Amino acid sequence: MTDFLTAALAPQSIAVIGASENPHKIGGRPIAYMQRMGYRGKLYPINPSRRELQGLACYPSLADLPEVPEMAIVIVAGDQAIAAVEDCAARGVRCAVVIASGFGETGPAGKAQQDHMRDVARAAGMRLVGPNTQGLANFGTGAIASFSTLFTEMPPADGPVAVVSQSGGMAAMAYGLLRERGLGVRHVHATGNEADVGVADLAWAVAQDPEVKLLLLYLEHIANPALLAATAAHARARGLPIVAVKAGRTAGGALAASSHTGSLANEDRVVDAFLRRHGIWRVRDPHALALAAPGYLQGWQPAGRRLVIVSNSGASCVMGADAAEQHGLQIATLSEATRRELAARLPGFATTTNPIDITAALLSNSGLFSEVLPVLAQDDAADMVFIHIPVSGAGYDVERFARDTATFAKASGKPVAVAAWQESVAAVFRAAGVATYANEHDALGALAQIADHMAMLREPLPQAEALPMPALPGASGLLNEADSLALLAAQGLPVVQHRLCRTADAARAAFAELGGPVAVKACSRDVPHKSEHGLVALNLNDADAVATTFTQQWNQLAAMGAAQDGVLVATMRRGRHEAMVGAHIDPQFGPVVAVGDGGKYVEAMRDVALLVPPFDQAEVVAALGKLRIAPLLAGTRGDPPLDVQALADVAVQVGRLIVAAQGRIASIDLNPVLLSAAGEGATIVDALVELKDSE
Amino acid sequence: MTDFLTAALAPQSIAVIGASENPHKIGGRPIAYMQRMGYRGKLYPINPSRRELQGLACYPSLADLPEVPEMAIVIVAGDQAIAAVEDCAARGVRCAVVIASGFGETGPAGKAQQDHMRDVARAAGMRLVGPNTQGLANFGTGAIASFSTLFTEMPPADGPVAVVSQSGGMAAMAYGLLRERGLGVRHVHATGNEADVGVADLAWAVAQDPEVKLLLLYLEHIANPALLAATAAHARARGLPIVAVKAGRTAGGALAASSHTGSLANEDRVVDAFLRRHGIWRVRDPHALALAAPGYLQGWQPAGRRLVIVSNSGASCVMGADAAEQHGLQIATLSEATRRELAARLPGFATTTNPIDITAALLSNSGLFSEVLPVLAQDDAADMVFIHIPVSGAGYDVERFARDTATFAKASGKPVAVAAWQESVAAVFRAAGVATYANEHDALGALAQIADHMAMLREPLPQAEALPMPALPGASGLLNEADSLALLAAQGLPVVQHRLCRTADAARAAFAELGGPVAVKACSRDVPHKSEHGLVALNLNDADAVATTFTQQWNQLAAMGAAQDGVLVATMRRGRHEAMVGAHIDPQFGPVVAVGDGGKYVEAMRDVALLVPPFDQAEVVAALGKLRIAPLLAGTRGDPPLDVQALADVAVQVGRLIVAAQGRIASIDLNPVLLSAAGEGATIVDALVELKDSE
Repeated sequence: MTDFLTAALAPQSIAVIGASENPHKIGGRPIAYMQRMGYRGKLYPINPSRRELQGLACYPSLADLPEVPEMAIVIVAGDQAIAAVEDCAARGVRCAVVIASGFGETGPAGKAQQDHMRDVARAAGMRLVGPNTQGLANFGTGAIASFSTLFTEMPPADGPVAVVSQSGGMAAMAYGLLRERGLGVRHVHATGNEADVGVADLAWAVAQDPEVKLLLLYLEHIANPALLAATAAHARARGLPIVAVKAGRTAGGALAASSHTGSLANEDRVVDAFLRRHGIWRVRDPHALALAAPGYLQGWQPAGRRLVIVSNSGASCVMGADAAEQHGLQIATLSEATRRELAARLPGFATTTNPIDITAALLSNSGLFSEVLPVLAQDDAADMVFIHIPVSGAGYDVERFARDTATFAKASGKPVAVAAWQESVAAVFRAAGVATYANEHDALGALAQIADHMAMLREPLPQAEALPMPALPGASGLLNEADSLALLAAQGLPVVQHRLCRTADAARAAFAELGGPVAVKACSRDVPHKSEHGLVALNLNDADAVATTFTQQWNQLAAMGAAQDGVLVATMRRGRHEAMVGAHIDPQFGPVVAVGDGGKYVEAMRDVALLVPPFDQAEVVAALGKLRIAPLLAGTRGDPPLDVQALADVAVQVGRLIVAAQGRIASIDLNPVLLSAAGEGATIVDALVELKDSE
Repeated sequence: MTDFLTAALAPQSIAVIGASENPHKIGGRPIAYMQRMGYRGKLYPINPSRRELQGLACYPSLADLPEVPEMAIVIVAGDQAIAAVEDCAARGVRCAVVIASGFGETGPAGKAQQDHMRDVARAAGMRLVGPNTQGLANFGTGAIASFSTLFTEMPPADGPVAVVSQSGGMAAMAYGLLRERGLGVRHVHATGNEADVGVADLAWAVAQDPEVKLLLLYLEHIANPALLAATAAHARARGLPIVAVKAGRTAGGALAASSHTGSLANEDRVVDAFLRRHGIWRVRDPHALALAAPGYLQGWQPAGRRLVIVSNSGASCVMGADAAEQHGLQIATLSEATRRELAARLPGFATTTNPIDITAALLSNSGLFSEVLPVLAQDDAADMVFIHIPVSGAGYDVERFARDTATFAKASGKPVAVAAWQESVAAVFRAAGVATYANEHDALGALAQIADHMAMLREPLPQAEALPMPALPGASGLLNEADSLALLAAQGLPVVQHRLCRTADAARAAFAELGGPVAVKACSRDVPHKSEHGLVALNLNDADAVATTFTQQWNQLAAMGAAQDGVLVATMRRGRHEAMVGAHIDPQFGPVVAVGDGGKYVEAMRDVALLVPPFDQAEVVAALGKLRIAPLLAGTRGDPPLDVQALADVAVQVGRLIVAAQGRIASIDLNPVLLSAAGEGATIVDALVELKDSE
């Protein structure tokens, strides 16, 4: 890994295979950029038709170089590119950046060529970036193995941000949006088709760079979740926030992603859960990647979510309050002392409750910001401040507003975001070092994001409690209900009281023992969905009915040709709500647990939260609080609060179980889990466990 | 109204009371603007300390003018403003624009002064705009009774857009955002505290201007729904779309609005329903007001919601597809012929399915747009086109891309939106007359908005079917359940079979007649919530139990001191889902109907749609289709589809009933309405009607 890091990000020597004299051509740009950025290693243009190129000595081939370069940039196309990769591998190049396209993204034939290049590279211990990539750019070392047009459009400046992206276009766009905000960017890396090196490899590499203070990712496919998780853990330990776009969120988007880079679809809700587990904040698009960057770089650490809004427009105060609620921020209640001080400083028609409308009086008194802001600095109720200036121009002393705002932000240590749609106004605030946005949604979105993200990163990483491997039958496939319940009971999970009966007399005896009412359910590994076959009878209250039902179900199993594993007689529980807990092994991300609203319509209503183990009860309770059934769980219409702790505990145990089973348990489906009032527990009434062969 | 229109928007003469020589002061700006914009009426500065001002003759007072001006702009403050309004009224000024602030927005004393000014104006037949307003600006006539700074910052250009706003700041912001996009704006009117003239008055006035092609509104309170509805009807008839921001959407926002202009809160979901009923499209903020403006002005009329995405970045294709799904647009399936033609024109590694990734090949072939777009024009599957250019700059022939795009848009008649975050690129497209956005969400949001809005405006306005006034008891207050059901049954609504009994024998007889099982429910106007008092017994299956329950409930009513109206014996229905229909009279908007998920938790789960009558079945069915229970209504997990038509019919009838009752019915609450399978109907099982005194 360290070898790759050095060779890819700080190579001592670079060959450009397919170099061009023209700095606007793909073959000319990296050389032009490196000369301009002061790359201090050896740079070797390779082009058989020239002896000199952009002022450098030019070589006919790799074989003619005075040394084996650490990195090679492969710009030649098609078969020439393949030959170049083979040559690089044979000669001991350590990292090849294959910019040429026309491989995996075009279909099976191109994919085979791409696989061949990867195999050749791997056999030689050479790492391969691309093909079909815009390349790598490190403005810290000046190693610019990239042809991005944007480095011409928006002059680079080394700085604390790193961008790693599958897509060259999105890497460039994020770079441009950051530079537009005046932020310095050190790393801009694109991985293209990811034949070998993926986003996670480069994310890991740049996370080792101590100068990097913010890491932004664009992914269409999470190919290496384990390495991404390790990168996130390393980043968390050193206080480096990671913000990611994972595109292909929708069915249409996933389809487009597969034509773009041939990547497989990740299930989007699992992606969400995975990123959350690892403290990576997910945003919608590259615009959103750049939006919160100034706040991260200023080290915003809001203590809470209580916001103060200040504007010279009453309407902006109204819309700011609307937007705050939408972003989950609270309008801070200012102290009486604060209000008195504000009233003393503002004109009579201004508003001194929060939001604070300083009115158009700002036009006649340019000092209003410097008078109002320090008052807020003293009030503990304010965790963050939002200033909206929707109207400004001639007559307004914007320079002074910006200076006063920057002074306040520094002195108070509170996050301060400004919105001003007029670029002439925004530019002044930005120049003063204030985080500035086009509108209140962008500004409050950034404040809310960083408040949540920082709170998430402050949480200790949940530790996996190592459970022993559970005792499991050797075969694969579905366990019947009795075996499923037994497995869960053995782990201490709260399953319904039940007896597995194989004769009518045993069913009578079970009824006598359990007391009524009972449910009677056929039990067969061949019939996982009993109720669809009429094999569930509820609320039976006498022994004769239980015996008759036993016989009927037993015979029906035979008639269906299904295994007669038995018939379950189970206590009828009257819970207050049907919840569910499920778990499965995602092919990319491993164990995932679902918890939420249960019952027959769980698929149609989709009111469940996904969590990646390990997690604790508190995390489940928080996730349940965001579901649509949250008011029911909290108690409403005279109903008591329900036992969400017990439900959370079931979810935690299920998570531990599926992890401990090391892949032997393919899925667990507990539905319903009957919830009683708080303190009265949860009961697993129906269970279906699927096993996989041990491998 | 016509008088007001002329006096406010095209006055023959204007006095400025409190005029200033300084064009940057509030008293100087309107004069400076009017001179610059070529106002052709008489302009009279009033300022006792000057004889001449900004090159015009200046007068000591209104009394000294050579004529009574049609309009007066009142800039002087406090008592002087009040005196000026009194003077204007006394002399026959027809419209006073009171810019001075410090009235209704400051508290009760200021409100009393404001009411006084309004009363004086009304008594004299003078209309009053403001106080606390930025004023009115008509760039068609040059009558600029406004001090907005923005008219200096962004030079005006007369054009097809009108902005009417309660807030001056938001009027200015919308103006600025439109001008920034190069769009011409004729009207920019702000109403401030709305002592007399409100947004609806000015909206009505500008809707009469035949040059206005798009009307944008900002409101914090809908003070005059009837006039706004009339304006919307007029606008619809002449093909003028209206887009509105109604701020104060949240509790926090509504609170801020009340400190801003002292306005009352409108219930936000009712605002939604009201605006939808009248074909006014609601957006979030002034940015959104401006976003869709180019599309409206280009006359976009997409036939459907099927979108083609074209980009030079594969990642933008992926994110475009994601964003399309989020905005409810479909990815068009291109015909085989189209795909073949695209394949012939694009490089091998490009994608010819939709989204169409033309790749970085655009860099070497600047003609790709002109080659690809005409192919799309022929495909009927494409209703609209979105082009995303996230990467451009040196080497790209942006002028040609823009020209080709504009040519295609004109030739095909299909809506075309472009996204380009680089202002240098966007400006070129904008100059070519293409609707251009910073990102895909803004672009697709505009396309989706106009597709939906135009479809909404194409629908015929629902006609109220005049029902006769229902026979209603004279008293006010709650009807008991029997009377509520009887009222509904008389209107032909499907109520559960029931009998009202006053003796145990009558209850036995009812059971014999109806057959079991039955529900037995105490009936008293004093006990609307029976189940909370244990006064509901379900599933009774024999006559003795019915008689016993009768006696028990009858006695309990007596014990509670509640009116013994009787005991209901009703057939037990086994519906498949509990829905609800409700109606009430909103104090601002009049009758409103709610329909959706019913049962005990209707408040907690809030899965209901609101509709403003009149509306038809189809509209209810469409609204039900957007609820969370929509999959259940459509049939899922082997359940049949439910009878949404029957539920919709109940909602339509309830709407007609509450309208016909002309205010006598305060509210109707039908919960549950039991839904059966499609074709098997809906049954109102419980009903509560509240009457109001006839006035």
